[in-house]
Amino acid sequence: MPRVSRTHDAGSGRIQLGMVGGGEGAFIGAVHRLAARMDDHYAFVAGALSSTPAKAIRSGLALNLDPERVYGTYAEMARQEKRRKDGIEAVAIVTPNDLHLAPALAFLKAGIHVICDKPLTTSLKNALKLKAAADQSGKIFAVTHNYTGYPMVRQARAMIAAGELGDIRVVQVEYAQQWLAEPLELTGHKQAEWRTDPARSGAGGCLGDIGTHAYNLADFIVGIPVVELSAELTTFVAGRKIDDDTHIRLHYANGARGSLWASQVAVGQENGLRIRVYGSKGGLAWSQENPNEMQFSPLRQPTQILTRGGFGTDEAAGRVIRVPAGHPEGYLEGFGTVYSEIAQAILAARQGQKPSASVVFPTIDDGVKGMAFVEAAVASSAKRGKWIAF
Amino acid sequence: MPRVSRTHDAGSGRIQLGMVGGGEGAFIGAVHRLAARMDDHYAFVAGALSSTPAKAIRSGLALNLDPERVYGTYAEMARQEKRRKDGIEAVAIVTPNDLHLAPALAFLKAGIHVICDKPLTTSLKNALKLKAAADQSGKIFAVTHNYTGYPMVRQARAMIAAGELGDIRVVQVEYAQQWLAEPLELTGHKQAEWRTDPARSGAGGCLGDIGTHAYNLADFIVGIPVVELSAELTTFVAGRKIDDDTHIRLHYANGARGSLWASQVAVGQENGLRIRVYGSKGGLAWSQENPNEMQFSPLRQPTQILTRGGFGTDEAAGRVIRVPAGHPEGYLEGFGTVYSEIAQAILAARQGQKPSASVVFPTIDDGVKGMAFVEAAVASSAKRGKWIAF
Amino acid sequence: MPRVSRTHDAGSGRIQLGMVGGGEGAFIGAVHRLAARMDDHYAFVAGALSSTPAKAIRSGLALNLDPERVYGTYAEMARQEKRRKDGIEAVAIVTPNDLHLAPALAFLKAGIHVICDKPLTTSLKNALKLKAAADQSGKIFAVTHNYTGYPMVRQARAMIAAGELGDIRVVQVEYAQQWLAEPLELTGHKQAEWRTDPARSGAGGCLGDIGTHAYNLADFIVGIPVVELSAELTTFVAGRKIDDDTHIRLHYANGARGSLWASQVAVGQENGLRIRVYGSKGGLAWSQENPNEMQFSPLRQPTQILTRGGFGTDEAAGRVIRVPAGHPEGYLEGFGTVYSEIAQAILAARQGQKPSASVVFPTIDDGVKGMAFVEAAVASSAKRGKWIAF
Amino acid sequence: MPRVSRTHDAGSGRIQLGMVGGGEGAFIGAVHRLAARMDDHYAFVAGALSSTPAKAIRSGLALNLDPERVYGTYAEMARQEKRRKDGIEAVAIVTPNDLHLAPALAFLKAGIHVICDKPLTTSLKNALKLKAAADQSGKIFAVTHNYTGYPMVRQARAMIAAGELGDIRVVQVEYAQQWLAEPLELTGHKQAEWRTDPARSGAGGCLGDIGTHAYNLADFIVGIPVVELSAELTTFVAGRKIDDDTHIRLHYANGARGSLWASQVAVGQENGLRIRVYGSKGGLAWSQENPNEMQFSPLRQPTQILTRGGFGTDEAAGRVIRVPAGHPEGYLEGFGTVYSEIAQAILAARQGQKPSASVVFPTIDDGVKGMAFVEAAVASSAKRGKWIAF
Repeated sequence: MPRVSRTHDAGSGRIQLGMVGGGEGAFIGAVHRLAARMDDHYAFVAGALSSTPAKAIRSGLALNLDPERVYGTYAEMARQEKRRKDGIEAVAIVTPNDLHLAPALAFLKAGIHVICDKPLTTSLKNALKLKAAADQSGKIFAVTHNYTGYPMVRQARAMIAAGELGDIRVVQVEYAQQWLAEPLELTGHKQAEWRTDPARSGAGGCLGDIGTHAYNLADFIVGIPVVELSAELTTFVAGRKIDDDTHIRLHYANGARGSLWASQVAVGQENGLRIRVYGSKGGLAWSQENPNEMQFSPLRQPTQILTRGGFGTDEAAGRVIRVPAGHPEGYLEGFGTVYSEIAQAILAARQGQKPSASVVFPTIDDGVKGMAFVEAAVASSAKRGKWIAF
Repeated sequence: MPRVSRTHDAGSGRIQLGMVGGGEGAFIGAVHRLAARMDDHYAFVAGALSSTPAKAIRSGLALNLDPERVYGTYAEMARQEKRRKDGIEAVAIVTPNDLHLAPALAFLKAGIHVICDKPLTTSLKNALKLKAAADQSGKIFAVTHNYTGYPMVRQARAMIAAGELGDIRVVQVEYAQQWLAEPLELTGHKQAEWRTDPARSGAGGCLGDIGTHAYNLADFIVGIPVVELSAELTTFVAGRKIDDDTHIRLHYANGARGSLWASQVAVGQENGLRIRVYGSKGGLAWSQENPNEMQFSPLRQPTQILTRGGFGTDEAAGRVIRVPAGHPEGYLEGFGTVYSEIAQAILAARQGQKPSASVVFPTIDDGVKGMAFVEAAVASSAKRGKWIAF
Repeated sequence: MPRVSRTHDAGSGRIQLGMVGGGEGAFIGAVHRLAARMDDHYAFVAGALSSTPAKAIRSGLALNLDPERVYGTYAEMARQEKRRKDGIEAVAIVTPNDLHLAPALAFLKAGIHVICDKPLTTSLKNALKLKAAADQSGKIFAVTHNYTGYPMVRQARAMIAAGELGDIRVVQVEYAQQWLAEPLELTGHKQAEWRTDPARSGAGGCLGDIGTHAYNLADFIVGIPVVELSAELTTFVAGRKIDDDTHIRLHYANGARGSLWASQVAVGQENGLRIRVYGSKGGLAWSQENPNEMQFSPLRQPTQILTRGGFGTDEAAGRVIRVPAGHPEGYLEGFGTVYSEIAQAILAARQGQKPSASVVFPTIDDGVKGMAFVEAAVASSAKRGKWIAF
Repeated sequence: MPRVSRTHDAGSGRIQLGMVGGGEGAFIGAVHRLAARMDDHYAFVAGALSSTPAKAIRSGLALNLDPERVYGTYAEMARQEKRRKDGIEAVAIVTPNDLHLAPALAFLKAGIHVICDKPLTTSLKNALKLKAAADQSGKIFAVTHNYTGYPMVRQARAMIAAGELGDIRVVQVEYAQQWLAEPLELTGHKQAEWRTDPARSGAGGCLGDIGTHAYNLADFIVGIPVVELSAELTTFVAGRKIDDDTHIRLHYANGARGSLWASQVAVGQENGLRIRVYGSKGGLAWSQENPNEMQFSPLRQPTQILTRGGFGTDEAAGRVIRVPAGHPEGYLEGFGTVYSEIAQAILAARQGQKPSASVVFPTIDDGVKGMAFVEAAVASSAKRGKWIAF
C-alpha cells in the first residue's frame, strides 16, 4: 500500500499563472483555477478572461486580480506580461477550440509556458503548426487531458506497462453523456452553442469534445499505437449541425482490437467515461464516475478491487494521491494532478532540467494525436467506415 | 407492483417430453431438463441422449427413463414415439449445432413439436430448409434463446414497445466471457472442442455461440429490424480455428445505431451479457449477471432501479415471475420461463388454438434471423467490415 | 474453480412427498413444491393443503394430485399414508407457525420424515416437545432455513471453518424488508394477517418471521455459539399487535460481538438479508439479493470478488451449484439445495446410513435454537435490553 | 437539476488564516490547508505547527510562511498575531485531541475565530468550559465534522427536513475502518500512537475518533435529538489501551430507533462511513466512499439514484457543488465546503452580521454534543449497556 506521498504545499516560490478565457459564463476556467490552486504550486495573477474586452476586464476584477494585470485581449496580455519583471511564467488557455491557436502562438513567442485545453485546435494542420512553434520555443506545452491525472488511471497504465495483463487483445473505451439529448443549443445555453457549432468546435462535435478524451485515455493507459480506425459519426437531434454520437473501431499496432463509443445523447449517462482492457493474462475495468477503484482480473484468479491508495496498488498511483484509501478523490483532484505534474516540469525547467521520469502529463504531442484522430474519424465516417490509417 | 402470478404447477396433464443429446458429459441437456421441470408442465419420458448408441442408452438409464424409451438414435426414437399411444408430444434437441437439422426434420415429420437449442443450424441455407419443413408441419418450433425468459428483459421490451424510451437512437449490447482466453480446446475439454471446430459449430465461433444470443436479446428488446451490419471477427488465441472475438456495428431500420461486442477471451468476464438502449425520452441498462434489476433513466429525471416484481414494473414482467421482489431468480428460471411459454403454446395447440398474445418465446423465425446474422457478419468481416444488408 | 458437480437428475427412485398447507392463497407452498422438483429427487403425491377441508380438497385437485390422496385434514393424511404401500416417505409442513406442532407430531408418529417451515413452533416449550418426539422417532426432521442453501453461504462457512478469517471479532447481520411499512394486515392481505397476529405467529413478529432467518444464517456461517443477547423490539405501525423492527446485540462464546437488525418497515428494502463477518485475518460480505458473489478481504490484500463457481471458491460451494459461474442462481435454487440435501439424508436413511459429511441442512436443533433466540429476545426487550443468556 | 452555483474564487479579500499543529508527520493539517485553499477564501499566513518549537519552526519554513510568522508555540502566535495590524482573522487547530483546549482558549481570548478539529476536547467538562469561553468571546467557533460538507449529505438533510421521508423510524449509521486491525501503535506509527493513547485521545478510542463523526453525521442529517443511548465498547487487539470497536443503540426523541457501529478492526473496510434512514414515507442510503450518489426510495415507488448535481436534487445540495453531475467530488471538496461555509460566516461577521440561513457548518455546540455522546457511551458500556440519557 503506497504512502500518501504528494507534497501538497509549495516548498518554493509559486508559479505565476495567467489565463486566457474562463471569465463570466464559462465553465472550465474556474476548474482550471481550482486545479492550479489544489497543491499550491501556482499563483493566479493575470488574465484576459473573455473575447469581449469589457467582459474580460469585468471578469478579472471580479476575480480580484490586480487591475494592472487585467487585460482586454490576450495579445495585450502577452505583450505586457513579457515585459514585467514579475510577469507570468505560464498561461492557461481555456477558450473555445477555435481560439486556442492564436493565443498559444502569442504566449510561446513571449517565452511563456502554455497549458492549453483540449482538443488542441480545430484542425490537424493548425495543430502541427502549433507543434512546430512549441518545439521551436523550447517552452513546455501541456494539453489538459485531465483524466490522465486520476491515480487509478496511473495504476492501470503502470500495470499494463509492467506486463500484468500480458499481450493486449481488446480495448473497450466509451464516453457517454446525456446533456445534448435535446437541442439545448437552441435555448441560449452557451456551452451547448459553441460545442455544436463546427465553426467554433471544429469538424468533430461529440467526437472532438469527448471522443478525444476517450481516445487519449485509452492511449495513455494502453500505450500501444492505434494504426487505423473505422468510424461512424451520427447526428440524432434534428437540426444539429454536428455529430452527437460516434462509434469507432480501432486497430492497434500489435493486433489488438478496440472499440470507442462517444455519445452526448445517452439519456441517463452523466459523464460516463469508462475503459476496459483485456490481455492474455488479465483484464481491468475503470469508470470515471467511481474513480477510486478499479477491477483487476488476473487470469484464473478472482477479480480484485484495487483502490486508490489501497493494498496492491503501486507507486505510479501512490505518488499522485493526497488522502488515504477510502477518502475519495475526484475530478478536481485529477485535474489538479495534471497541473501539479506540469508544475514539476516548470520547476525543473527553471534549472534547465527535465523533471523526473515519473512526472507524466499530456503534451502537445497528445494534442496533435487527438486532432489526427478527429480528422481520421471524420474521413472514415464520410466513406461509410472505411479504415483510415493514422 | 405486479403480483406473483405464474402458475407453478401443472393444472392439466403434463406434456410428454423427449430429448436428443444431453447425455454423459453434456452441459446444456441437464439445464433443459431442469427448465422443463421448473413449472411442472412437462414429464421427461424418452431420449436418444448421445450420438453414440451405447452412450445414449447408458445415459438414458442413468436418468431413470423407462428402458423401453431409451433409444440409441434419434431416428429410432422419432419412429417409435410416433407409433406409441403415449408418445412424446415435444422433443428438445440439445446436440452440437451441426446435429440440429436432421433430428429436427425427423421429429417434425413425426408430428412432434420441436424445441431446438441455438444457433439453429450451421448455415442459413439449412435454417431456411428447416423453416420450410416447420411451416409445412404446422408444429411448434421453438429455439431456446433463453435470455428472453428473464422478467426484466420482458420489462425492457414492454417499455420500449410502449414508447417509454421515445425514438430509439443507440443500442449497446455485449456478451463477454473469459473461458476461451486460453486454448482450452487442446486440453480435452469437450465443450471447447466442438465449439471451436467449424465443422461442428458452423462458420461463427464466438459469433455463433454467444454473438447470436446478444443479437437475439437486442432484437427481442428493441423490436426494430437491423437492416445492415459491419463486422470484424478476430481470433486471438494462437492455433484456434475460429473467431473468439467479434465487434459488429448495426444499422437499424429507423436510423438507430448499434454496437455488438462478443468475446470469449475477456479475462474476468464470466457470462457478461449486457444491453443498454438509449432513446429520445429515456435510457435503460440491464445485465444478465445481475438480472433482477434494470436501470431506467427517464429524460430529465433521476435514474430508477426497477426490480423484478418491484414497484414500477408491469404485467409483461409480472406474469413470468415466481417469487416476490428481493427473492432473486436466475438463469434457470429464465430458461424455465421459455419452456413454460412453449408449454402454453402446446396446450393451446392441443385445442387447435393459438396461445394468448402475452405468451412469447423465440421461434424458428428467430433461429433463421440468427443464421442470417452469422452469415452477414462472416461476409462483412471477410471484406474488412463492408456493410452487408440482411 | 469447482466443476458444476450436482446431480440434477434422480438416479434412483424419487422420494414420495406429501404436503400440509400451501393451498389456495398461500405463498410458500408453491416455493416448496418447486424446490422439491428442482433436482428431481421428489415426487409430490399427496396433500392436506389447507386447514379448511373443502379448500384443502379443492387445492389438491387443482394441483392434479390423485384424488385418493387429496386429504381434508393432516390427521387423515397421516393415517392413510401410513397404511399405503406407496405411502409418502416425507412430508413438508408449510402452514402458519401455530400449525406446525400437531401435524409434525402426527407424521413423526406415522414414521414419516418431516420437512418443516420456520420458525419451528410458537414457543420454545413446544419446540422442545417436538424435538423429543423427533429424537424418539429416529426420523429426519429438517427445518427450511433456506438461505443456508446458497452456494456462497456455503463458501463463507467453509472459509471461516478453515480459519481464513482468523479469530472472529465482529458479526453484522441484517434482514430488512419494507412490506409491512404500512398496516397491510388491515387490507385483507392474508400473509400480513397471520404474520402480525401473535396467536398465529408466536411472540415474535418481525423477530420470528425474518429475525430467525438472520440468526440462523449467522449461526450457520460463523459456527460459534451465541451465549447471550440484548434485544429491543419495536412496533412502528400504529395498531400493529407485534414487533415490526428489532435491534439485537449478540455475544459470542469466543468474545466476538454481533449486531442483528431485522425490520419490516425499511422502505426501499425488498428482501435485504446481508451478513458481514470480520476476523483477525480477513473480512467477508454477502447479500442475499445479489447472492452469486461475495466480497472477501484478506488482511493487507485487495478485496476479492468471489463468485459462485468462480476462481478461488472451493468444494463446499461447488457441490451445490447447477450452472457455471456467471449464470446466476437464485432463491429457488438455494431452496432446492436444501431439499436436495435432505434427499441425500433420506436416501442414506433408506440404507440405515448417515449421508456423507458434506451434506448439510438445518435440522430440528436449528429450529429449537431459533425458538430459544426468539424467547430470549422477547425477554430481553421486556427488560430494556438486559443481557439474556441462551 | 441545480446549477453549479458555488463561487470558487474569492470576490473580496481573503481571510488570513493561521494554524496550530499540522507540521511534520501530521496528516490532517495538510488536509485543512488544502480545504482552506479549495475555494480561495483563505490565505494561510502563520503557524505554530508542532508542539516542539524547533519542529514547529522547521515545518513553517518548509511551508514557505513568512519567517516572522512562524512561531514556536501557539501562545506566542496568539500574542503576536493579535498585535499585528495584518494579524490572522481565524486559526485552525489541528493538534491531537488533548491539545485543543488551551490554544482554543488562547485564540478566542485574542479575538480570533477558531476552526477546531474533532472531537472537541478530551472531556465534556472541558468542552463546556470551551463553549462558555466561545460564547463570551462572540467569535465564530467551528468544529470540522467535515462529512457535513458533502452535497448529498446536504440533500439527505434537506429531504428529511422537508418531510419527504415522513416520520423517521429507523436510523442505521456505521463507520467501519480496518487500519487498527493489528497493533499498529507498536510499530512507531504516529497516528496510531496518539489515537490509541487515552491520555491524548480521551476516553473514547474508536468511539472518539470516528464514532463521533458517525454520530454527528446522523445528527446533521436526521435533525432529531438522541435522548438516550446504550453502548458497548470493545477492545479486540491484545494490549490496546482503548476501544477499537463500538456498538451503540440510540433512542430518538420522536421514538425512532437507531444503531451506530464504529470499528477500526473491520478488515476490508477503508473508510466506510454509511447511513441509512427509514421513515413512514421513504428511505434513503448514502455511503461516504461513493459520495456522489444517494439512493432514495419513496414509499411504493422504485428506488431512485439521486446524484450530486443531478436531476431531482435541490438547492441545499446545489449550492455546495463545484462541477457538474458525473464529475465526482470527494473528501477534499466536502472538507473545503466546510471551510467555505465558515468563510461565509466570517465575511458576514466582518459586517457584524449573520450569514444567510443556508450557510451551515458544525459549531462548538456540535462539539459539545459529541463529547456528551462519548461520555454517555463510555458510561453505558461500563454498566453493560445501561441506557444513559444525554
